[in-house]
Amino acid sequence: MMPNVTVTGLLAAYQCGELSPAEELSSRLARARADQSNCWIECISDDQLADYLSYLEGHSPADLPLYGVPFAVKDNIDVAGLPTTAACKEFAYQPDQNAFVVQKLIEAGAVPLGKTNLDQFATGLVGTRSPWGPVKNSFNPEYISGGSSSGSAVTVASGQVCFSLGTDTAGSGRVPAAFNNILGLKASKGMVSCSGLVPACRTLDCITLFAHTTDDLNLLLETAGQYDAEDCYARENLPQNSASAYQPDNVLKGARIGVPREDQLAFFGNESAKKLFMASLEMLKAQQVELIEIDFQPFAEAALLLYEGPWVAERYAAIDTFFEEDSSRCHPVIETILKGAEGKTAADAFKAIYQLQAYKVECDRIMEDLDVMVIPTAGTIYTIEELLNDPIRLNSNIGHYTNFMNLLDYAGIAVPAGILDSGLPFGITFVGPAWSDRKLLSFGGEWQQLMGMPLGATKTPLPALAAREPVAKASMDTGNIEIAVCG
Amino acid sequence: MMPNVTVTGLLAAYQCGELSPAEELSSRLARARADQSNCWIECISDDQLADYLSYLEGHSPADLPLYGVPFAVKDNIDVAGLPTTAACKEFAYQPDQNAFVVQKLIEAGAVPLGKTNLDQFATGLVGTRSPWGPVKNSFNPEYISGGSSSGSAVTVASGQVCFSLGTDTAGSGRVPAAFNNILGLKASKGMVSCSGLVPACRTLDCITLFAHTTDDLNLLLETAGQYDAEDCYARENLPQNSASAYQPDNVLKGARIGVPREDQLAFFGNESAKKLFMASLEMLKAQQVELIEIDFQPFAEAALLLYEGPWVAERYAAIDTFFEEDSSRCHPVIETILKGAEGKTAADAFKAIYQLQAYKVECDRIMEDLDVMVIPTAGTIYTIEELLNDPIRLNSNIGHYTNFMNLLDYAGIAVPAGILDSGLPFGITFVGPAWSDRKLLSFGGEWQQLMGMPLGATKTPLPALAAREPVAKASMDTGNIEIAVCG
Repeated sequence: MMPNVTVTGLLAAYQCGELSPAEELSSRLARARADQSNCWIECISDDQLADYLSYLEGHSPADLPLYGVPFAVKDNIDVAGLPTTAACKEFAYQPDQNAFVVQKLIEAGAVPLGKTNLDQFATGLVGTRSPWGPVKNSFNPEYISGGSSSGSAVTVASGQVCFSLGTDTAGSGRVPAAFNNILGLKASKGMVSCSGLVPACRTLDCITLFAHTTDDLNLLLETAGQYDAEDCYARENLPQNSASAYQPDNVLKGARIGVPREDQLAFFGNESAKKLFMASLEMLKAQQVELIEIDFQPFAEAALLLYEGPWVAERYAAIDTFFEEDSSRCHPVIETILKGAEGKTAADAFKAIYQLQAYKVECDRIMEDLDVMVIPTAGTIYTIEELLNDPIRLNSNIGHYTNFMNLLDYAGIAVPAGILDSGLPFGITFVGPAWSDRKLLSFGGEWQQLMGMPLGATKTPLPALAAREPVAKASMDTGNIEIAVCG
Repeated sequence: MMPNVTVTGLLAAYQCGELSPAEELSSRLARARADQSNCWIECISDDQLADYLSYLEGHSPADLPLYGVPFAVKDNIDVAGLPTTAACKEFAYQPDQNAFVVQKLIEAGAVPLGKTNLDQFATGLVGTRSPWGPVKNSFNPEYISGGSSSGSAVTVASGQVCFSLGTDTAGSGRVPAAFNNILGLKASKGMVSCSGLVPACRTLDCITLFAHTTDDLNLLLETAGQYDAEDCYARENLPQNSASAYQPDNVLKGARIGVPREDQLAFFGNESAKKLFMASLEMLKAQQVELIEIDFQPFAEAALLLYEGPWVAERYAAIDTFFEEDSSRCHPVIETILKGAEGKTAADAFKAIYQLQAYKVECDRIMEDLDVMVIPTAGTIYTIEELLNDPIRLNSNIGHYTNFMNLLDYAGIAVPAGILDSGLPFGITFVGPAWSDRKLLSFGGEWQQLMGMPLGATKTPLPALAAREPVAKASMDTGNIEIAVCG
């Protein structure tokens, strides 16, 4: 068992003088450098650590909300002083400055220990598509870690850092959370700035957070969710979605939670995953949740547009010059996928945009009737060997429950939901409309307490939720605001 | 001078028994059939008129808000019983039902006298691109009427109908209003349903209203602006934009109105147009408007995306099967324009969407600081002969102030602003963000009273604005709503 796995736990240890950042971060960095799971692409140098430590001097958790908290950054997000590779050596560049969100986290006292491995160009949900090797699952090195934010998830799950930044276009901020028994928050599009990110699909990309608890995520989102006027896809948060809207104490009781019709669920032969999902539904029912069967078909159809439709052209557009010069510099699977953009016309793009809009209207109507929706984060998991033998089809299976989310402008939190017979983790995702982030954190928080599972792969027991001021339930339940029109 | 040119005037005449729909509409229909300006493609039959009249039996303006009001419908919008041609004979089809907005207007008692001529497939701002001949300007038949909603504008300007439906993707609901001395309301995207419209660019298309007064437009928008759950691009109106927000009595005084820097204005050699625009600005200043010079560059650059960028592929996508079978069935200018879609890739489309998003953020910041913006509706006007000799460049000049609007999701009202030395009308447009429609009507209404010009080409004097309940000014000025957050 490892101490101080969580952000809040580590901050408390610093605050009471039990630990110092210099010792703690040196020891964390040494452990990261010794990691054998392929989760890092590059760690910071001793000099860089010294610089970060000097920034912390004279401060404490009282004035820096993330004072001395180690984190990891997916290597498609800029950290000044380290190359950004997007898991492609020939593509790598040296960024002049930190990505907006990295800068805000560092200003708040957090310390990036390095850059993490990913499916190249964030294209994949598996964690095997990288010249730095497949990222090994934190529970069993034979298994995939999920992707594309594979390294970021594993650094958290293994307790090397307290939180990490991933990205999520198709599910990359959720699948690896599920496969490593941690939490992945894919906040509303535009809530976390994407300035300083190598784009996958610019209209869809989100930078995401991995952590062990919803208390941590709520705290982190305060810093990471600051509005960036320079990111033209950034959107300002809404008042009803502020940090104080996080109230994980009693949200399940009486909540209307949508769940796909049983015949629309897919577990790809994984009976154990099916059992865990059904058990999750029973557990929700026991909390007096009103489970509402919904038609998942429009969500599933919208999901198909992501790789079968013209959005793959966004991935191509993001690196077209590099790709056209010599596409063989890409991982072979990525090269195949990006070649799918060839022949896709602007007319195809607009037609797909119309289709998506029709799905969005249909799905929004379903969602309007619900507090949240609950789905498996992924229907199954594979060994690295299985995946390498059938890379595209199995990747597709893994994205069955994730690909629709950004296309439809929803938010989601992936939370642990048990351990499969294989010993690997299984997870569920709570899904809500844009700006339901704090509501989703509340559902995730209460759920996690019910499950009571140890954190990630660390065997650290789940801490209790922090005490908070009670808030009138009515206003939290609905996410609505009362509007008074003058005149 | 013609009586009952306006909707409200005609309704009053019916209400007091001065006129009956049977006589009035028969006479209007006879006049429409005798029209020599090429503004109609097809009028309704006597039997069809009889059917509409029988619907009105037993009713009055007291229970049907548009009882017996004749209107015209641009021939890319479905009216049951008449073919929809989009100004292309080979493309024509017989619709089974009315377009949603046509149906709502008919249910409210309005009677469509027929379908009007347009630039083919609503592609153009000139009114000359139709096998039914160029639509002649209502002031001088040598001049263009503007397009693409050319016929719809001329039927109103000449007093054949009280209002009409046009469409507006690039400016088609504003330019012909300016060229014929009437009002053109391009409401917020999605406010007027587009179900039953032959698309030009589905992500941008609006169905628009032409009429003689803002009182009429405010009334019409009540019926025409009903939410259509079947149109996946429809959006529900906001409370602050309801009919009661139309308050044209005293909005100019103290208003912050943006105007392009003088060096960014373009009149294409038309000094008379420039003088009228400058005089308009002086007139606004005399009303104690605060005129604010703005940088028009990002609006102008966004505008270029419409025809130079991939949005032309939307026009192609709308009729691709028809076009591919035999593109020579299109008007030669339209054929040339639609061929511009060739070679535009999905990656091009997404890159242009990114550019547009960047312009939108920039333009929104400029607009946020203003109540509305004022611009010339068009910088000049041409004779039909001039236009036919140089069809693409001159069309482009006419769109200089219009093409950005739908791309940036703004609303606009085109209003008359004087008569050029050539004897042709000149107009200005008030521009606001989405859901500023009633605010724009208010600005347009006060402006029109200041100008006091006769209606359209009818020589009918401008009526006074209807009396209305005074509303607290504060709430109307800002368009804001006060929000009280519970909890």
